[in-house]
Amino acid sequence: MRLFSLVLLLFSVPGFVLPLRAEEASSRTGASFDRSVRVADNREPAIPRPEQDKAVAAKLAAMEQKFGKKPNIVWLVVDDMGFGDPGCYGGGLLAGASTPNIDRLAREGLKLTSCYAQQTCTPTRSAILTGRLPMRTGLTRPILAGDKVTQNPWEDEVSLAKLLSDAGYTTLITGKWHVGESEGMRPHDVGFDEFYGYYPAQKEISQRVDGRRYPGLVLNSERLAAFEAIGPGDHLIEGHKGGETKEISQIKSIEDMGNADQVLTEHTLQRIAQLAKQNKPFFLEHCFMKVHCDNFPNSDHVGESEAKYPYKDAVHEVDRLVGQIVDALDKAGVLENTLVFFTSDNGPQMDGWPDAGYTPFRGAKGTTFEGGVRVPGIAYWKGMITAGRESDELFDLMDLFGVAMNLAGVSSDKLPADRYYDFVDQTSFLLSDDGHSKREAVYFWWGTTLMACRMHEYKVHVKVVLPQAPHMHIDLATVQDVGLSPWFFNLYLDPKEEMTVGHRLDPWLASVTAKLKAHGATFKKYPPKSIGL
Amino acid sequence: MRLFSLVLLLFSVPGFVLPLRAEEASSRTGASFDRSVRVADNREPAIPRPEQDKAVAAKLAAMEQKFGKKPNIVWLVVDDMGFGDPGCYGGGLLAGASTPNIDRLAREGLKLTSCYAQQTCTPTRSAILTGRLPMRTGLTRPILAGDKVTQNPWEDEVSLAKLLSDAGYTTLITGKWHVGESEGMRPHDVGFDEFYGYYPAQKEISQRVDGRRYPGLVLNSERLAAFEAIGPGDHLIEGHKGGETKEISQIKSIEDMGNADQVLTEHTLQRIAQLAKQNKPFFLEHCFMKVHCDNFPNSDHVGESEAKYPYKDAVHEVDRLVGQIVDALDKAGVLENTLVFFTSDNGPQMDGWPDAGYTPFRGAKGTTFEGGVRVPGIAYWKGMITAGRESDELFDLMDLFGVAMNLAGVSSDKLPADRYYDFVDQTSFLLSDDGHSKREAVYFWWGTTLMACRMHEYKVHVKVVLPQAPHMHIDLATVQDVGLSPWFFNLYLDPKEEMTVGHRLDPWLASVTAKLKAHGATFKKYPPKSIGL
Repeated sequence: MRLFSLVLLLFSVPGFVLPLRAEEASSRTGASFDRSVRVADNREPAIPRPEQDKAVAAKLAAMEQKFGKKPNIVWLVVDDMGFGDPGCYGGGLLAGASTPNIDRLAREGLKLTSCYAQQTCTPTRSAILTGRLPMRTGLTRPILAGDKVTQNPWEDEVSLAKLLSDAGYTTLITGKWHVGESEGMRPHDVGFDEFYGYYPAQKEISQRVDGRRYPGLVLNSERLAAFEAIGPGDHLIEGHKGGETKEISQIKSIEDMGNADQVLTEHTLQRIAQLAKQNKPFFLEHCFMKVHCDNFPNSDHVGESEAKYPYKDAVHEVDRLVGQIVDALDKAGVLENTLVFFTSDNGPQMDGWPDAGYTPFRGAKGTTFEGGVRVPGIAYWKGMITAGRESDELFDLMDLFGVAMNLAGVSSDKLPADRYYDFVDQTSFLLSDDGHSKREAVYFWWGTTLMACRMHEYKVHVKVVLPQAPHMHIDLATVQDVGLSPWFFNLYLDPKEEMTVGHRLDPWLASVTAKLKAHGATFKKYPPKSIGL
Repeated sequence: MRLFSLVLLLFSVPGFVLPLRAEEASSRTGASFDRSVRVADNREPAIPRPEQDKAVAAKLAAMEQKFGKKPNIVWLVVDDMGFGDPGCYGGGLLAGASTPNIDRLAREGLKLTSCYAQQTCTPTRSAILTGRLPMRTGLTRPILAGDKVTQNPWEDEVSLAKLLSDAGYTTLITGKWHVGESEGMRPHDVGFDEFYGYYPAQKEISQRVDGRRYPGLVLNSERLAAFEAIGPGDHLIEGHKGGETKEISQIKSIEDMGNADQVLTEHTLQRIAQLAKQNKPFFLEHCFMKVHCDNFPNSDHVGESEAKYPYKDAVHEVDRLVGQIVDALDKAGVLENTLVFFTSDNGPQMDGWPDAGYTPFRGAKGTTFEGGVRVPGIAYWKGMITAGRESDELFDLMDLFGVAMNLAGVSSDKLPADRYYDFVDQTSFLLSDDGHSKREAVYFWWGTTLMACRMHEYKVHVKVVLPQAPHMHIDLATVQDVGLSPWFFNLYLDPKEEMTVGHRLDPWLASVTAKLKAHGATFKKYPPKSIGL
């Protein structure tokens, strides 16, 4: 039923008539606000940067020669960390939790300030592993306890883990999965060699052990049993490709919950030491359980943050563990042959406030305002990425898919031609000293509804999620149509999306809206997949 | 008449009864949320840090021995720059204007993240030169064109410039003054040896030359003449102690306006080269005209910012000029004997948006929310302040008064005993490697009304300024009483002041409110001065 709203959108942006399509403008003048070129019908158009690509390819070839193998790839994905939480993004101490290790990665690497995730968890996590938008794969919203899909989306998706495995990588994921826990949807079913973590989000585990916060559940044995029956999820799982699955331990207390990230990190540290000795490169996705609510401090580090508050302790702990992982790469001698990318899966989940993060922007997780989708994004590669770089050019976390393919030497023809791919290969943006982004637009979806598009510093909203109370962006918000004109913001002049500039810049409004519509039109030839979520 | 509201406040915080005064609590337990000690009836209580003070005094004595004179003091004060404008505070590129020079000062010095100004211009500028709150000196709001005071506030105020002059410093101010342009109120009347700048704010000058923005004024010769008659203010003035005053040039076009900061900086650069050769130390307050609206680009650097927008160009130019001033100190060989402090006089003036800055916080200039009063604050002293320091402990710009007195060796007994001083000597906070603040509270006034108080990470509001439209914090806002309970925010958990935590932390609410009341009570013994503003 929801698909209906998309179909409508494809043919009309309500109340707004485009004076001129961007493509037409471009053919007239030779220049266009939209600099991207579509090289294949089923691929996201990209800004051509042939010189930059060539130089970086040469740099990578030299690296491969030097190390005798392809580079390792490490993603560090925090859960629900706000854009403003790390110090290097304006928070840190100011927000009660210093983040010296994340700050160091930024200082010694490339700090992206316009790095975008989807507005919730499952959508982001699936998008970066498929290179495709949630609307295409069907994973359009977080899979919740009790959710049943009518079709396994992974049945015909080709995961990055599979592509990298096929290219000779050891592929492993530690920590939170949250893209399905039934057989066929688990990490080790969809391409990862190894999984060591939990299937659901932190919150869905802690409900069972936190009698203070959820007394009506924990103290009511019948309800608790019924809740457990929906799907346990509180087991630390070790899974291996082929299906072998072992329950390592179980979360039995809030202390276990508070220590989960330490346990997971210890596994990652151990595996790094082992994997570094192999002849094969590795792809490691380390997904922190924190700082998703509910947060409990690590029992050895209670009050470790300046604020001495569970959420802030969680930020501080994640930072400390990030430091340990990077140290482990260093000690294992692979830092110069490893791309590390640090990020968060979406904006802060403010509905759980004060167990919630900080974003300077409007909105939060669950909205397509910047607060929901703009996330920290740091690329660090000792010797390869020049220290102190910063860029505000566009990066979508899905682009990590393209970067990983490039680094692993996976050819585009490994990707099925019958479906649309939304990622852009941003390898040369990340690795050139003066690298520029090849992405011209970021599209923002909310479930099955196309909401907004950013191009350059402009962002157009055709629908918005508005909270009905402070912080209540998920549990007490509504999706609303914009009025006569789309909401059009200049994010340089108005990072907080407070005042529109629409009618002052009609051509740009038209250009960005045209881009959004062109994006919508890709679903005509490549229809969205519904999995019954 | 306005004083009446203050008197009321001294005796009651509406709707709120204090269960216990902070001082009483402290005498009972030996520990107190309020760690400060009042050493004199007319001085702001400070947190005792005797070891830190002693160590820094020794460090300074060694410096004086080495250089044979007291250190130079340079304040760089930007007009209306938002907390978020510099890159090192979370803006920069992200907000359309990179600030590499300011970022470098932060990286190589001490970045303060809880540095507070008054919520408007004249109040801040007078407070840092008197060490006293605007409510005490009468300079409670910006002096506007046409304003007449009934009493010259400077008649009995002792300016920092006078104290430093008496202590053997050359004292000069370049750029915007805005604390009175009538005789007796000019910089060179109140203690500065030299003045080279403009009396009013940028806006009041550009109104006369910007026919596009103010056609009804510029194109109407009668009105323009009447406007001019109110007070010209568009002359670049060179003034010397004793009263000698020369008009150097006049702003005749928006180009002149756009280039004003370059002209002012060139003067500063020239004077630095000369002053460095003297045997005397110098105190230089360089006050940028920018980034106060209306902003016009420097004609040699039109579009110099990434956003290519006048406000953003202004941010970029200020950054560039900051770099030039610091370079000049370096070239003159005095960098190791000079404390440089970079700041802004208040939050961004959003009413002029899009010719306005960026703050991640709630509110803006003219409000006592963080957006109005929290400003960038960077202390840089090559070799003396260890690179990369950051602190979220409290600093009020008035504390610069105490720091300057300390560096210049001006004894407290130079200050009249018949009046209250609000500054805290924060020299040891700024100059210790692990320095801690000696300030326990910051008080927020709006005109003659006591509005709010911050202690630790907590802030209590007894009145608030609320805008009636986005960005309209000055021209379309109202001052409102809080409801049953003061608004009480935890700024670590809630930097944007969105959700109160009052009744969850009654003792802290009581402590901070008690502090606010104790502050109000100082006006009983030391009554406020009214100058008819």
